Amino acid sequence: MKIELENVLPKEIENRSFEIITEELGDTPLLPGTELIVKRCIHTSADFDYARNLCFSDGAVEAAIEAVKRGASIVTDTQMAKAGINKKALHKYGGNVYCFMSDEDIAEIAKKSGSTRATASMDKAASMEEEFIFAIGNAPTALVRLYELIQEGKIHPKLIIGVPVGFVNVVQSKELIMETDVPYIVAKGRKGGSNIAACICNALLYMIDNSRE
Amino acid sequence: MKIELENVLPKEIENRSFEIITEELGDTPLLPGTELIVKRCIHTSADFDYARNLCFSDGAVEAAIEAVKRGASIVTDTQMAKAGINKKALHKYGGNVYCFMSDEDIAEIAKKSGSTRATASMDKAASMEEEFIFAIGNAPTALVRLYELIQEGKIHPKLIIGVPVGFVNVVQSKELIMETDVPYIVAKGRKGGSNIAACICNALLYMIDNSRE
Repeated sequence: MKIELENVLPKEIENRSFEIITEELGDTPLLPGTELIVKRCIHTSADFDYARNLCFSDGAVEAAIEAVKRGASIVTDTQMAKAGINKKALHKYGGNVYCFMSDEDIAEIAKKSGSTRATASMDKAASMEEEFIFAIGNAPTALVRLYELIQEGKIHPKLIIGVPVGFVNVVQSKELIMETDVPYIVAKGRKGGSNIAACICNALLYMIDNSRE
Repeated sequence: MKIELENVLPKEIENRSFEIITEELGDTPLLPGTELIVKRCIHTSADFDYARNLCFSDGAVEAAIEAVKRGASIVTDTQMAKAGINKKALHKYGGNVYCFMSDEDIAEIAKKSGSTRATASMDKAASMEEEFIFAIGNAPTALVRLYELIQEGKIHPKLIIGVPVGFVNVVQSKELIMETDVPYIVAKGRKGGSNIAACICNALLYMIDNSRE
């Protein structure tokens, strides 16, 4: 069997990929203004399920973009997502990316309280004065704690990207976030992941500034 | 609508997830000895496609485990995969995780030669004396270059984890690797990703040493 490679220049690969995705999506309806986010999630996963499982609260994308422009930081629940977010693009506006999961104080608090490090990380974020976008790609307990903190008026996220992946309380934790009045982008169901969390952050950043390096 | 959370202790979440995956796999046939890898990929993605798209060359798992025990290092093509690999577990046997993609010399070589940083990264690995497992979750050009280097006798990977994701030359690059006589674990088709690359590395590490922290 002869394996033939498509002749595409390195810098053209992403454009060509998005063309193929657009072509294969065909008539699949996408919410106006969210297309680039949905397509980037498909680009990251080769999984067209994201064309139907991504849910956006009204004005979520606009709210997120405004927050980034004002210098909001991103809090995520995995080092993988932190590694994947385009920090240079975010720094332009003054924002940072935080992941508290490996911090010593977080491990201690989680151990003492019998909860998860993700829960303790959300409490740490609530104690800080910055504007935050949360990008949760792994721990449903992070979303559950965010829900509680929102109900208690202790945290006011500019956006919650709720895309943990998995089988235990993942579906429910996303539904909790969709009951709040906080702007959200949620992948309904079991799917998501650190890669999807990072990818949605990057899609938002690239919507602001298309001049990428 | 009342959202009810399942009451599972943090430390039990992973076990419970694997139970659910095993239950839902039902009679799906898995190659003996690869079950933990396949299930961990499903755990990482909530995508049961990995039960049928993961291909293992004969003895690949055993070869990889022997290499890790001898102190082999892992070379990956993304910082995300590097962040996701359990480096502490690998260090126990003497191995490191390398990602050359952000190295200055790599960027220069790629620019000069009109190829990709992934291609240049594989050349860099070929010039080193260590034993390597390659975990490629993003760039098909990395797999294509590995194929060429193998044909030229310039590199002898202990294992290639070939799981780039995407739409341009991804399918073909995986087929090339499956034509070599190098041990491989490949996700046939378009799917894969940095998360899957890291997850397969971790599955191998946890098969050696189940005593995780």
